Amino acid sequence: MITKTWNYAQRSAHIAPSVIREILKLTLKPEIISFAGGLPSPDAFPMERIRQATQSAMDTYGTATLQYGPTEGFGPLREWIAARVSQGGRCKVDPDQVLITSGSQQALDLIGKIFLDPGDFVALERPTYLGALQAFNAYQAQYLSMEMDDHGIMLEEFEAALKQNPKMAYLLPNYQNPSGILLDEARRAPLAKMAEKYGIPLIEDDAYWGLRFWGEELPNLYSYAPDNTLYVGTFSKTLAPGFRLAFIVAEKSLISKLVQAKQAADLHTTTFVQMIAYEALKDGFLEQHSVFISELYGERCNTMLEAMDRHFPKGLHWVRPQGGMFVWVTLPEHMNSLEIFTKAVEQNVAFVPGTPFFADGTGQNTLRLNFSHASLEQIKDGIERLGNVLHQALEGK
Amino acid sequence: MITKTWNYAQRSAHIAPSVIREILKLTLKPEIISFAGGLPSPDAFPMERIRQATQSAMDTYGTATLQYGPTEGFGPLREWIAARVSQGGRCKVDPDQVLITSGSQQALDLIGKIFLDPGDFVALERPTYLGALQAFNAYQAQYLSMEMDDHGIMLEEFEAALKQNPKMAYLLPNYQNPSGILLDEARRAPLAKMAEKYGIPLIEDDAYWGLRFWGEELPNLYSYAPDNTLYVGTFSKTLAPGFRLAFIVAEKSLISKLVQAKQAADLHTTTFVQMIAYEALKDGFLEQHSVFISELYGERCNTMLEAMDRHFPKGLHWVRPQGGMFVWVTLPEHMNSLEIFTKAVEQNVAFVPGTPFFADGTGQNTLRLNFSHASLEQIKDGIERLGNVLHQALEGK
Repeated sequence: MITKTWNYAQRSAHIAPSVIREILKLTLKPEIISFAGGLPSPDAFPMERIRQATQSAMDTYGTATLQYGPTEGFGPLREWIAARVSQGGRCKVDPDQVLITSGSQQALDLIGKIFLDPGDFVALERPTYLGALQAFNAYQAQYLSMEMDDHGIMLEEFEAALKQNPKMAYLLPNYQNPSGILLDEARRAPLAKMAEKYGIPLIEDDAYWGLRFWGEELPNLYSYAPDNTLYVGTFSKTLAPGFRLAFIVAEKSLISKLVQAKQAADLHTTTFVQMIAYEALKDGFLEQHSVFISELYGERCNTMLEAMDRHFPKGLHWVRPQGGMFVWVTLPEHMNSLEIFTKAVEQNVAFVPGTPFFADGTGQNTLRLNFSHASLEQIKDGIERLGNVLHQALEGK
Repeated sequence: MITKTWNYAQRSAHIAPSVIREILKLTLKPEIISFAGGLPSPDAFPMERIRQATQSAMDTYGTATLQYGPTEGFGPLREWIAARVSQGGRCKVDPDQVLITSGSQQALDLIGKIFLDPGDFVALERPTYLGALQAFNAYQAQYLSMEMDDHGIMLEEFEAALKQNPKMAYLLPNYQNPSGILLDEARRAPLAKMAEKYGIPLIEDDAYWGLRFWGEELPNLYSYAPDNTLYVGTFSKTLAPGFRLAFIVAEKSLISKLVQAKQAADLHTTTFVQMIAYEALKDGFLEQHSVFISELYGERCNTMLEAMDRHFPKGLHWVRPQGGMFVWVTLPEHMNSLEIFTKAVEQNVAFVPGTPFFADGTGQNTLRLNFSHASLEQIKDGIERLGNVLHQALEGK
């Protein structure tokens, strides 16, 4: 059989299979303890609440649960989000400034679609979220990678990037995927205002809101420059990733343009799920449930960090996360995490090598560990195994 | 307050508000009988079955209903679709050839994304589905509009368009939206094979499958040229539009590319809804339910046609639909349906003027009537009112 050759668009060359997807396939054997994926724990899924919410949505909204709905999203859900993103009144968010999207991946896709011409630059952190690179790659973006320290992106780095006039800047201030880094509070207002001063739209991807293990949540970047910032949030970590429910909060004319783009992309996000999600999260449930998840993940994170302290060799660096789902490890310069990955899988433990998170293709000596999905026992056992692999690699065995 | 000016991508100029959306806003007054929208009837929504299916999905698949899932879609649903599109074995469809999408709007968006460079031509029917124009416009497509007669696209028209080497061809063979036209069976094999001969990918949008009022369904175009045809189907008309659940069936390497594009666009379609839909439609339910909907819509269609025969002036042309949701009316050349729309709304009856369905901006003397959403009484009453408006307009009042 002759394989057919299709005459694709130029951008198709930039739409490539995910490296991580291929890697994850190697980690699916049941005997493997995997820290490779980015899955929330099923222990965190509020099954009973969703069952009740489905009944409640169908009782309350009737056939409207199954009908077409507005592109902007379900009104009461938009109101809830507006109130949530205002952080108790720190800033004012009108429900008209909220667009419901089919996962935050769609939010990034729509933002790329309206802003990015081929060759345009996006300023982003080094490392950054792989899904954002995939979304922007499809619009043939180029990247300005900005250096972070343990407290997030540095002001000088950010300003140097803005001076090169990128089309937009993309930051993950809270427990960044993959680095787990929390952007320091003191840097937040200056960063947001600097982007506004240079006239560069700032995309704030807050995928892990609600998942801080202790302390109060920090002010979002949006609150410091609401006319220049696109805040992207999701219900994937606090409610259910299988719902594919997320949102963008932004200035009204920008939301109008994004609504038009979304209408062409999928008409609207499922009415059924939006109504169920709203019934599930209202009356303070999500706030309570976030506390539950934060405690669950905080315990897993601590268990992983303790095991790393005990079993990992000296000379490695990692930041102790205050929230989210990941610990990021930097190995000595000469080491290659892809080689270590192969050895680790032989020992039935897996992680994600760091390179796919670098827009500039570097990061060979980095790796990401997920702590949300494995049990405490698996974490202890898996980190001990991985420690042995790392010791052997460092000793050149 | 100064309105902010955003530095959008060039394609953003082609992402515009839907004319129909603006028109529909005028028809929302409760006293208006509207034939303007394209809504399925809520009487056709299987509420009880969906309630049971939700319970069944959560019992059967547990926390997997709420977890991330594969980009390709839920396995058992892909199998069901493969069997359905093979039309009882007329052609062979492997489940790997199925991609689940977030509504058929996303199917069209992803197809545009991988195929269309700015300025590329798409050959399509005159009139055609507005949502397809919106999806392809976002990729800066141009159009070759092909003439139809009452039996669909004509072979000579199709060949003339293919000779101009468009990037793809887009057809709606069954009860086309907006024209209601059913493509003649005798034209199907030659059309599909002609596109293959010229090496132009053929997109077959079968949005209304299962909704034929009498007789057997005709062979799909896909079955005649499976290596060159992209079959797009949806559950919006037979199950629930609020689910946003649709699919593409195509050659495997093309599905791989579409999967990569979808991964960048929204990761995957909601697991929760896919599993519920599968539980709802299995065991022959959808086949039965399609019969129920076809009878419901067939009765409404007949009622509308009878009322049109009685109340509409001579000199108008319309095709009697054999399925779907629309009757398409062509007025005498000198008449303008937008002017008539204004007068009709004054008489509390609404339709959609036809121009937005024409890629070439013509069709001023056409209009679309939806018969799926209004009750029989409303149809009789509304068509009588519209008949009066049309009589007056013809008489120049």
